[in-house]
Amino acid sequence: MASKLLVVDVHTHLYLPRYASLLRERTTLPKIITRTRDDGRKDERLVILKDEPSGGRPIGPSYVERDEKLTFMKKHGIDISIVSTANPWLDFLQPKEAHQLSLQLNDDLEEYCSTGPTVTGTSMKQLYGFGLLPIVSGISTESLLEAVRQISASSHLKGLIMGTRGVGKGLDDEALDPIWAAISEAGLAVFLHPHYGISKESWGAKNNGHVLPLALGFPMETTIATTRLILSGVFDRFPSLRLLLAHSGGALPQLSSRLASCIDHDPIVASRLKHDARFYLGKLYLDAVCYGPEELGFVSDVIARSNRYETGSKNVASGGRSSGSGRMLFGTDHPFFPPLSSSERWKSVVENLDAIENVQGWTEADKNGVKGGNAISLFNL
Amino acid sequence: MASKLLVVDVHTHLYLPRYASLLRERTTLPKIITRTRDDGRKDERLVILKDEPSGGRPIGPSYVERDEKLTFMKKHGIDISIVSTANPWLDFLQPKEAHQLSLQLNDDLEEYCSTGPTVTGTSMKQLYGFGLLPIVSGISTESLLEAVRQISASSHLKGLIMGTRGVGKGLDDEALDPIWAAISEAGLAVFLHPHYGISKESWGAKNNGHVLPLALGFPMETTIATTRLILSGVFDRFPSLRLLLAHSGGALPQLSSRLASCIDHDPIVASRLKHDARFYLGKLYLDAVCYGPEELGFVSDVIARSNRYETGSKNVASGGRSSGSGRMLFGTDHPFFPPLSSSERWKSVVENLDAIENVQGWTEADKNGVKGGNAISLFNL
Repeated sequence: MASKLLVVDVHTHLYLPRYASLLRERTTLPKIITRTRDDGRKDERLVILKDEPSGGRPIGPSYVERDEKLTFMKKHGIDISIVSTANPWLDFLQPKEAHQLSLQLNDDLEEYCSTGPTVTGTSMKQLYGFGLLPIVSGISTESLLEAVRQISASSHLKGLIMGTRGVGKGLDDEALDPIWAAISEAGLAVFLHPHYGISKESWGAKNNGHVLPLALGFPMETTIATTRLILSGVFDRFPSLRLLLAHSGGALPQLSSRLASCIDHDPIVASRLKHDARFYLGKLYLDAVCYGPEELGFVSDVIARSNRYETGSKNVASGGRSSGSGRMLFGTDHPFFPPLSSSERWKSVVENLDAIENVQGWTEADKNGVKGGNAISLFNL
Repeated sequence: MASKLLVVDVHTHLYLPRYASLLRERTTLPKIITRTRDDGRKDERLVILKDEPSGGRPIGPSYVERDEKLTFMKKHGIDISIVSTANPWLDFLQPKEAHQLSLQLNDDLEEYCSTGPTVTGTSMKQLYGFGLLPIVSGISTESLLEAVRQISASSHLKGLIMGTRGVGKGLDDEALDPIWAAISEAGLAVFLHPHYGISKESWGAKNNGHVLPLALGFPMETTIATTRLILSGVFDRFPSLRLLLAHSGGALPQLSSRLASCIDHDPIVASRLKHDARFYLGKLYLDAVCYGPEELGFVSDVIARSNRYETGSKNVASGGRSSGSGRMLFGTDHPFFPPLSSSERWKSVVENLDAIENVQGWTEADKNGVKGGNAISLFNL
């Protein structure tokens, strides 16, 4: 099958022009500021957090321009990208503005994808998207459902990207049940992505740039949010919910047996769940953005073993590492982690592709699946 | 070799009688309180944190009595335990009291071990210990060095247990350099153990008992502290420092390639380190307290691959999973995670032993090493 040879990037971001304009106009955080460099050239920086190291993140055309995305894809042999707005999404807006902007940005993104090029020799587009919900404090359920319906009706939008705050109380808030129901019903995927990290007091006083919040805080946030979802019973109530975790699920795979043990020692918490915590990891999809072959292999082991942990299951044997690969999907995190020099290929991409190639125990078919085939199936491209 | 067949528990806690008495006398946290149950029996609870779920942790004779420790060991086939005071150690005391108490408790622990039984047919004791430093805000370096010298001179104390706060600014504080130097020089091991977790705002409003802080907060704290140690260059400055991480290093193995990538994209941080971050993971020791065979196998992979990441190394090949097992050591976390019913064997112990047995790719010799042989070598028992 030709589809097996395509490379699909499921973790690749953008700021649509309408969104970038909004950030430029803002006077409070988050905002895009323009600095004049020593050589007189202008330099845009996105400042998301108070006291952000290095005065914010450099932000250039690669964040906004579709041609830049396509050039990056061509350079790295990526056939299809499922693009998503980067954090902080609409989190900082009031409900009315968030609602209006989500509808506009979803339309913008549908147009961005539908008017883009086609993969040569196929009917597939090169660009698909994850839309946005106006998921902010004070928003009405009806506004959220309206955005779900809009995304569902947009043929190039295959799901939505979501942070971890929900409507103010996190994703384990029962107020979101109608949203999970509608998303499941529509067959959309939810790309769960971190933004807030964890409390910065954890990082100490030393200046380590962005390293600690990015390397640890981001994946820890995803780990916590997903664990809270498991504990809240969301996966029991909505077994067909398709949740794709950024950064290979952060630390959740490595902490999952400890989690199961802690639940097992707390009868009240345990009684709320239908299965051992490890069962639910097999219901997730995880991007393959963790930069190492041992990490990827381990994540696929954790997916593969999940059938051992289904209540009443007689499957004592694990499905084997290969079987876990089917829920893992290549990603790049473009345009974050740009190369330090203007080298031909981005190290972040090369490392994630090399990691897939070097997983012990994955067949060529498994590797091709992770690189693209799994995404083509999951998103029915 | 007979030593290969011994089971050694490196992660097993106690509150020495002197310490328990102090906690009972206290009127502010942390303290041990006595509740009278409905049936009129007394029930002691250790309350460490404000608003602790379930009114604190039940605490009984298993926390204090040496006979209870030995009975537990016998029941579970554990030949040797290297016991350590459980958190919160001396963290809540003023420097003078912490200094005095550390010296007393180290003497108490030496006596606890030295007057205990011997492993049948050997000259080895059944009990060894990790001592305490008075590592609190405002303590003098000389007081810390005095405790290091005392532990070093106590023949049954094989190292020390330490939290993550240091003298108030974390373990990446240069003020601790003389302490790392003295510990390395003395050949003592540092058992790094969590206590504070991460900010509780991460856990949300739902009542999930202790599950989130214990399952996620504890290992995340260890992950952050160790990462900060790596970034501070401690392992470059003290290459012979022997650091044993609780709970198999928490999330550090799974986040280590992401960490390396984030460092790689920050030239200032990268320039401070001699090696790729993944190299340092091969310099650590990790307990085998993570409740799953896939987790253990992965941790040993991460140790085994570390030689690939030594600057200037020509070792492109990993040492293989077997080679990583040499730095992993069985533990139980006794007397925490007691069984819900009065069953014969503790599930927490059974699960951690089963996990070792079921690691794919470990030989019988590797498994025996993790169960005991590695500890016998590391601590020169």
